[in-house]
Amino acid sequence: MPSISKKGQHMPQSPIRKLVPYAEAAYKQGKTVYHLNIGQPDIKTPEIALDAVKVHSLEILAYTRSEGSDEYRNKIAAYYGQHDIHLTKENIIVTTGGSEALLFAFGSIMDTDDEIIIPEPFYANYNGFSTASGVNIIPVISKIEDNFALPPIEEFEKLITPKTKAILICNPGNPTGYLYSKEEIKKLAAIVKKHDLFLISDEVYREFVYDGATHYSIMQEESIAENAIMIDSVSKRYSMCGARIGCLVSKNKEVIATALKFAQARLSPPTLAQIASEAALQTPQSYFDDVIEEYVARRNTLISELEKIEGVKVAKPKGAFYCIVELPIKNSDAFAQWLLESFDVNGETIMVAPAAGFYSTPGVGLNQIRIAYVLNQESLKKAVHILKEALKVYKD
Amino acid sequence: MPSISKKGQHMPQSPIRKLVPYAEAAYKQGKTVYHLNIGQPDIKTPEIALDAVKVHSLEILAYTRSEGSDEYRNKIAAYYGQHDIHLTKENIIVTTGGSEALLFAFGSIMDTDDEIIIPEPFYANYNGFSTASGVNIIPVISKIEDNFALPPIEEFEKLITPKTKAILICNPGNPTGYLYSKEEIKKLAAIVKKHDLFLISDEVYREFVYDGATHYSIMQEESIAENAIMIDSVSKRYSMCGARIGCLVSKNKEVIATALKFAQARLSPPTLAQIASEAALQTPQSYFDDVIEEYVARRNTLISELEKIEGVKVAKPKGAFYCIVELPIKNSDAFAQWLLESFDVNGETIMVAPAAGFYSTPGVGLNQIRIAYVLNQESLKKAVHILKEALKVYKD
Ligand SMILES: Cc1ncc(COP(=O)(O)O)c(C=O)c1O
Ligand SMILES: Cc1ncc(COP(=O)(O)O)c(C=O)c1O
Repeated sequence: MPSISKKGQHMPQSPIRKLVPYAEAAYKQGKTVYHLNIGQPDIKTPEIALDAVKVHSLEILAYTRSEGSDEYRNKIAAYYGQHDIHLTKENIIVTTGGSEALLFAFGSIMDTDDEIIIPEPFYANYNGFSTASGVNIIPVISKIEDNFALPPIEEFEKLITPKTKAILICNPGNPTGYLYSKEEIKKLAAIVKKHDLFLISDEVYREFVYDGATHYSIMQEESIAENAIMIDSVSKRYSMCGARIGCLVSKNKEVIATALKFAQARLSPPTLAQIASEAALQTPQSYFDDVIEEYVARRNTLISELEKIEGVKVAKPKGAFYCIVELPIKNSDAFAQWLLESFDVNGETIMVAPAAGFYSTPGVGLNQIRIAYVLNQESLKKAVHILKEALKVYKD
Repeated sequence: MPSISKKGQHMPQSPIRKLVPYAEAAYKQGKTVYHLNIGQPDIKTPEIALDAVKVHSLEILAYTRSEGSDEYRNKIAAYYGQHDIHLTKENIIVTTGGSEALLFAFGSIMDTDDEIIIPEPFYANYNGFSTASGVNIIPVISKIEDNFALPPIEEFEKLITPKTKAILICNPGNPTGYLYSKEEIKKLAAIVKKHDLFLISDEVYREFVYDGATHYSIMQEESIAENAIMIDSVSKRYSMCGARIGCLVSKNKEVIATALKFAQARLSPPTLAQIASEAALQTPQSYFDDVIEEYVARRNTLISELEKIEGVKVAKPKGAFYCIVELPIKNSDAFAQWLLESFDVNGETIMVAPAAGFYSTPGVGLNQIRIAYVLNQESLKKAVHILKEALKVYKD
């Protein structure tokens, strides 16, 4: 029997997937499971986007240009213009989700054994994209005590080697909810400028910022126009994760020309989803206002309920819809499994994401979980209550 | 300025893309251009597929399972059952086009510097996927004189090294139109079995077979159940290239488990397109009968017209909708450019794909072009007439 690749063997399994069999077992036992583990929002997709695919008059569902249609890219550029990011369609390649934009960025700037520095905890699939691209992630630890602020510049500089090609941040962050300040972005700009690195910023949650804060994008930092690559997506912004539309944005012409070659090899992003995504750009502001209000209310409920539990530590998220929670336990993998297999409060339990999967340093984050607040407030309250009761009896 | 990757530099440009500026120039001159260069059929998408996305009642356009929904995979398995390929949903991963299935296959079985043997000429984007995966293509030449039949077994065996991990065929072939016989598939099965290799078969044109021939899939060859990986796609079958739905099929559980990890990293294939593709499976047989009839008529017209031209050689395609044509010229790149820039018959010219891009051996195929017969018969006749006139005056 021929053998699979080393790369394939090393491809990580998503930290959530591992729990799926236990969740299925919980269902079989008749339990209700509150899903605090996923990034699929329960918010409705704007009707304008869903309707656009209902009224199309296509006779042939054809490929689009590999970089996305001119019209759609012009409109994306106009959208960024409203957010003080000044671009033209030439700076944009439409991709199959932010996921593909990340893959194209990795492939365009890194070769096998090159290194990318990423503040951890980070979005777990960065591991998969790195493995698929043959690239090594060099983590720099950000701490729950600091609310996951940018680690000091010296910590980055210690890690830079001749193999370092890029720094990757997620702003605001999954799983931390951390929003980088303008000063922090400027510090990163100084490092990448000094060491001639790329700065990739995953801004798929760019509009989910709370408490009156404003998002400062790496694309607003003129000094690093040649270094900056932004990753974006319609998935969370319009709650249309299933569309699979995102984009890679850069003012560096060589980066765009290179990413375009990757895009050409796979021919085209999905056509129907581009129609929906182009229409989604007309979503009224009231939709977003409502969504933000809802997330803020959920976050406030979640955090205040969590803070009531003895021994629990949580960094208050300023954006996105996740938070990392430190628990008075030793191993959250075992805890998460136990919650599904062996615990319930009146037939109800919770599914959480063990945080170790968001770190690449071994042994870190073992007593942490990630909670996504994509459930309504009442469910969140019930879920935190279950967590509280669970911690009373759990022994590891 | 930070520099892009070596991989990115080596990523090939599609052989057609290079001509796009010249095509645009031809349009500016007011010329009509017959496109013989593309794989985007002009056939209408089945209404049943397009209608399915018009009547959906989704409120949230959510991610699907990374491997595609159970229902859709069950139906795909049933479709193969009708073609004497016996599978279950566990053997299938739904992908974003056949393109992504190829990427997942490459990543699952090959590491950097591994080798894959491919009969050339081959689908040009295999170059891109290989470069992206860090894999080297080792071409084995198939000849126009032999109608592009499978090269002798000895030719393959000469090329097998410890780095060889797989053989990739396209059946029926783009750009050759060649359909492998059952005997040829059995020969390949014997080689991969003997040398413990994977056999990847790109069968995206599996239903486009003519003259009463039957397609014999590698999935029908029980002896290589552990070696065989099939690539498929809805793009050409239902003329819905823009859907971006394909699949990777294998009975090798490790291959599926590994490809699934790649699939999980990118979360989900497009949801709307899965709805359309699932509906497309109900397309009535009459649709396919009509399509095949149309392609056969086009092929017959094309080949008979081409054979009338002095000095032109063409291998009669038995499947797909492409053929390789040898011309009495030295350099088809220059010829293709000249056709767009400097030639016309009453304001009309043609765009062809120079064949060198379909070979990886340097210097081979320079006097060949690929013609896609995705135009109606009348346009094909006009196009061949233009080619004939062009050859009378062209000097290289
Ligand atoms: C931080 C981050 N980046 C990228 C993605 C990829 O999303 P998509 O491919 O749906 O755009 C996600 C999805 O959860 C994410 O959380
Ligand atoms: C031989 C072959 N394989 C794979 C593909 C990829 O098609 P898709 O990604 O649209 O399924 C094509 C498209 O032209 C092709 O010709």
